[in-house]
Amino acid sequence: MGKLREPLKDLATCGLPAALEVMGERWSFLILRAAFNGVYHFEEFSSQLGIARNILSNRLAKLVEHGVMVRQRCEDDRRKVHYCLTPKGENLLPAMLALRQWGEKFGGNVSSELILVDARDGKPIAPITIRAADDREIGWHDLAWMHRDELGKKKPDCC
Amino acid sequence: MGKLREPLKDLATCGLPAALEVMGERWSFLILRAAFNGVYHFEEFSSQLGIARNILSNRLAKLVEHGVMVRQRCEDDRRKVHYCLTPKGENLLPAMLALRQWGEKFGGNVSSELILVDARDGKPIAPITIRAADDREIGWHDLAWMHRDELGKKKPDCC
Repeated sequence: MGKLREPLKDLATCGLPAALEVMGERWSFLILRAAFNGVYHFEEFSSQLGIARNILSNRLAKLVEHGVMVRQRCEDDRRKVHYCLTPKGENLLPAMLALRQWGEKFGGNVSSELILVDARDGKPIAPITIRAADDREIGWHDLAWMHRDELGKKKPDCC
Repeated sequence: MGKLREPLKDLATCGLPAALEVMGERWSFLILRAAFNGVYHFEEFSSQLGIARNILSNRLAKLVEHGVMVRQRCEDDRRKVHYCLTPKGENLLPAMLALRQWGEKFGGNVSSELILVDARDGKPIAPITIRAADDREIGWHDLAWMHRDELGKKKPDCC
């Protein structure tokens, strides 16, 4: 990764804690997983996940507060409420699938009967990888840090 | 996502919990982040992260137990010990970067002075995306579930 290193104590400059606050908590990721599977109603989250109503209510409120889900009145029945993923929530999917693929690859006895495929051709999706700006697949040892104000001006300090 | 839905209560078939057990705990992901930045020694993890020695020791032991890191004697000083990422650990990087990019995109005031670039051309890496088998970028609404034993035999049930 070159000579530069992140300021490791300074979490305000890292996007990971914000993401893990939403994804890292067990019930929150289970709710998100259900939402990506097309669950909308409080009652359905409750019955599908087997989660206590007070915990579900609390976690949904947090996800709404984080802007990851939005609470909407149903068009056809105004007494009912939908919880839908916002664009911010939908954007968690690559991270969620990358974590999931890792768990499936290395988790030992994790194996799912259902495979995630591209609806167009019915083929399993590809492993999620890191890409350079020109779309080449790259790995850990191809990466370097650069100061924002030096971008485009010089090569990274590892070269 | 089509008509099929995952069995949402059955976590044994989902790779996410295994991944979040390693990544979701605050100190564990900070240790992993430091390891990806080239930190090896116990003393360096301790001073760089400002983490109590007993917690660090406990979390490193867990990461070793999960096969994500490995404990090795230093070649040049046999009294010293290195903690290195295993291939299983290195494989967490796409998920880590996808979470991080999400946090940077939506985290509000998260902004880093350092940008992750491809060492070859010094350009920022691309956003991590979901790809079909033929490398097309696809999104949530392009995905469907298929039974493992029906792969290649028919189109997904949403088509």
